[in-house]
Amino acid sequence: MEIRIRRAQRSDLSEVIRLVRELAIYEKAEHEMWSTLEQYELAFDEKRISCDVAMVENEIVGCTVYYDTFSTWKGKMLYLEDFIVSESYRKYGIGQKLYDAFIEEAKKRDCKLVRWEVLDWNEPALRFYEKQGAIIEKDWWKAKVVF
Amino acid sequence: MEIRIRRAQRSDLSEVIRLVRELAIYEKAEHEMWSTLEQYELAFDEKRISCDVAMVENEIVGCTVYYDTFSTWKGKMLYLEDFIVSESYRKYGIGQKLYDAFIEEAKKRDCKLVRWEVLDWNEPALRFYEKQGAIIEKDWWKAKVVF
Repeated sequence: MEIRIRRAQRSDLSEVIRLVRELAIYEKAEHEMWSTLEQYELAFDEKRISCDVAMVENEIVGCTVYYDTFSTWKGKMLYLEDFIVSESYRKYGIGQKLYDAFIEEAKKRDCKLVRWEVLDWNEPALRFYEKQGAIIEKDWWKAKVVF
Repeated sequence: MEIRIRRAQRSDLSEVIRLVRELAIYEKAEHEMWSTLEQYELAFDEKRISCDVAMVENEIVGCTVYYDTFSTWKGKMLYLEDFIVSESYRKYGIGQKLYDAFIEEAKKRDCKLVRWEVLDWNEPALRFYEKQGAIIEKDWWKAKVVF
């Protein structure tokens, strides 16, 4: 299987949102997903998000969505907002290639660290991140207000 | 006590970093704080962070640090990276004024939600956030790689 990672173009965003929805369903949270393609396009146009996509033949089967942020403790940070490999394409090393491209991009942007979040019951994801040498912190809770 | 909230200027950043260090010590994590004033100034100049400061007379006694991000589920999001009231100035309503200014700014920027994180043992912070009607999520872990 030939896997190719490339930077997403604006016209790929409808496929990216399809993958985000697929993961939201896996995370039992589709009802929490209210975003629209127009919001993605606006964020993309304003350079508020970057995306990479994984291609198998001509199909998009995985993606990452990330953006620059700032850690008051460490400095410039790249935040991995979403990281998806479509279910039927798992176990072929696609996630590893996407992850490696993300880390490479963080170094290129002179970031001091990268961060993301993982659901405490998502065992396959946790095993993958531990294999990458990521530090998992369990003593923070997330807070939010939705308007 | 007269409390005034205003947008931080570049020259306030050394006071902001002093407050961030004070909170890092409270969170038992001063050794985790490696950032420099130069990094703050660069992020400020590049508009990657916004700060508000709370003034009592001519002293900066509290601050927020926040930035625009993007939720793949909800759309445009304002992320509260740090939120500090200097210990000897707590209980005077300064945190409430800073929080209100942050929420107002999020609405002005047309954000769909705001997010932040809180340590699971930080009871005063948790009580404050619950009083604001924030939703606390306990089933996510944080992951990071530091370069």
